[in-house]
Amino acid sequence: MGEVKHLCLVRFKEGVVVEDVLKGMADLVAEMDMVKSFEWGQDVLNQEMLTQGFTHVFSLTFASADDLAAYMGHEKHAAFAATFMAALEKVVVIDFPVVIAKPPPPA
Amino acid sequence: MGEVKHLCLVRFKEGVVVEDVLKGMADLVAEMDMVKSFEWGQDVLNQEMLTQGFTHVFSLTFASADDLAAYMGHEKHAAFAATFMAALEKVVVIDFPVVIAKPPPPA
Repeated sequence: MGEVKHLCLVRFKEGVVVEDVLKGMADLVAEMDMVKSFEWGQDVLNQEMLTQGFTHVFSLTFASADDLAAYMGHEKHAAFAATFMAALEKVVVIDFPVVIAKPPPPA
Repeated sequence: MGEVKHLCLVRFKEGVVVEDVLKGMADLVAEMDMVKSFEWGQDVLNQEMLTQGFTHVFSLTFASADDLAAYMGHEKHAAFAATFMAALEKVVVIDFPVVIAKPPPPA
């Protein structure tokens, strides 16, 4: 069994200070050992027809589905999720086992 | 300047043979040297409220924004994209420079 990703695409509500949300997320993830890695990004091409208004991506990687479940069920995640969701105008969340179709070249 | 990702969340039309689409995408990516890596996955939690009906994620990683631009502008990508888009009921595409907030532990 390989890695599992928890991916969120979001658009924040007007007036939300994205840096504050990011700080909260980074702090949470830093203390949650079952989160193997965390990366995020902001859309740069701004092709509204393709982005459907979504502006940010947050991607958490777990070593297993059990680790993902442990994270999702953790009370600190629940507390953060409530704050996070309240800051969003729209969101899509997908959880998926990662299939590597083309591996990165050796470093 | 770090990596750039081209991320697609999709829901296929009824009747589409996903394996065929995947085969086409893997073949394209295999011969496009500017694509550093390619991974994909299918949502497993099926929480309709969160997935908004999206079922699959496709993630292409590039070493630079220039490589992404070269891929997007390549005639083989254009040919594939036309076929790909025709197979989709809905799609969101986000292109973003990757910010690594929590790096994976050393292997």
